[in-house]
Amino acid sequence: MQLQLALDMLTTEEAINIAVATEAAVDIIEIGTPLLKHEGVGVLRAMRERFPDKQILVDLKTMDVGKYEADFSFENGADIVTVLGVADDATIQGAISSARSHGKKVLVDLINVTDKVDRARQSLEWGADYIGIHSGIDQQSRGETPLNDLRMLSESLSVPIAVAGGIGMDIIDQIVDSRPQVVVVGGAITQAADPGSEAMALKKRLGG
Amino acid sequence: MQLQLALDMLTTEEAINIAVATEAAVDIIEIGTPLLKHEGVGVLRAMRERFPDKQILVDLKTMDVGKYEADFSFENGADIVTVLGVADDATIQGAISSARSHGKKVLVDLINVTDKVDRARQSLEWGADYIGIHSGIDQQSRGETPLNDLRMLSESLSVPIAVAGGIGMDIIDQIVDSRPQVVVVGGAITQAADPGSEAMALKKRLGG
Repeated sequence: MQLQLALDMLTTEEAINIAVATEAAVDIIEIGTPLLKHEGVGVLRAMRERFPDKQILVDLKTMDVGKYEADFSFENGADIVTVLGVADDATIQGAISSARSHGKKVLVDLINVTDKVDRARQSLEWGADYIGIHSGIDQQSRGETPLNDLRMLSESLSVPIAVAGGIGMDIIDQIVDSRPQVVVVGGAITQAADPGSEAMALKKRLGG
Repeated sequence: MQLQLALDMLTTEEAINIAVATEAAVDIIEIGTPLLKHEGVGVLRAMRERFPDKQILVDLKTMDVGKYEADFSFENGADIVTVLGVADDATIQGAISSARSHGKKVLVDLINVTDKVDRARQSLEWGADYIGIHSGIDQQSRGETPLNDLRMLSESLSVPIAVAGGIGMDIIDQIVDSRPQVVVVGGAITQAADPGSEAMALKKRLGG
């Protein structure tokens, strides 16, 4: 299982500092949606320059112009982009089409999707590389976790899953039980007293 | 009725040049979602510096961390931000809470919302200032327009509506029939041979 570090409510400098501190444990660096909207693709270029060989995901959460947003992300150094499962079919297909022409990948984020199994199945048919099971930060603040959706989807479909939403040491073992491909951790690392050792402790629970 | 100019698939320099060329006709300048993701809040600050007194909308299309994304937009010069109707209730409420504390406004964008009248009613109860009726660019490419949704919603609810989605001279009169508060035009102005005169022609159809 891979560990993805979500960098959300930070500046470019803070994001790079945390990425450097956690480099040994992190497989995928995520440029989070609010970080991208605040800093633009400059943060992506800066991260790619600092980490030429690391996988970088841009959490576009695209809702429209799927191909256009994916195109400029891949052109500025992204390996993976996200598109919203609640977006129009054509938007998801546009992001996937961009990924295919760049030799890169797309994650379809099922946040707030009503019929998650159906949307996951469609997305895979169109060529999505990952399905994202995701409780938003605003949903976490009333106690939600992605555990139930993760269990439900991983029992229903054979699919590469990335799971996100308030994950830390308290629920990491339950998350690991469902064997997702990618475990996304944000605040539990970025707000830790020592992000590097917290990331390493989490990575060990993922089996490596 | 107000004319809003949507600036989407452009650079900061192109966006400012078109805003300057159309200044006399445009009531609200929109920093579009892909423009924001590409350029970051720098494009908002640059637009605010060039237009100290113009209304500026930031099309955040927020799906999570409603308060955080609205906060940094208002702090960098926005008058209005958007949040997705498909987002979690708490995300919409967070954006509205930010607007109230800054004395600014929120538009809830109903793109891809299934029960539009219900979501519009809820959003108004929470304090939303505008409801957005919106056919995405990816939806327009298969011929969709926002006309049916506009008619349906304006007949069902008394609500300040902003309508967007491929609007140009060909359907402007039908749009005006429903008396929305704001008419959003993007490509029909930005891709016109003379954006300034196209914007003025559209503004005249809105009644001044």
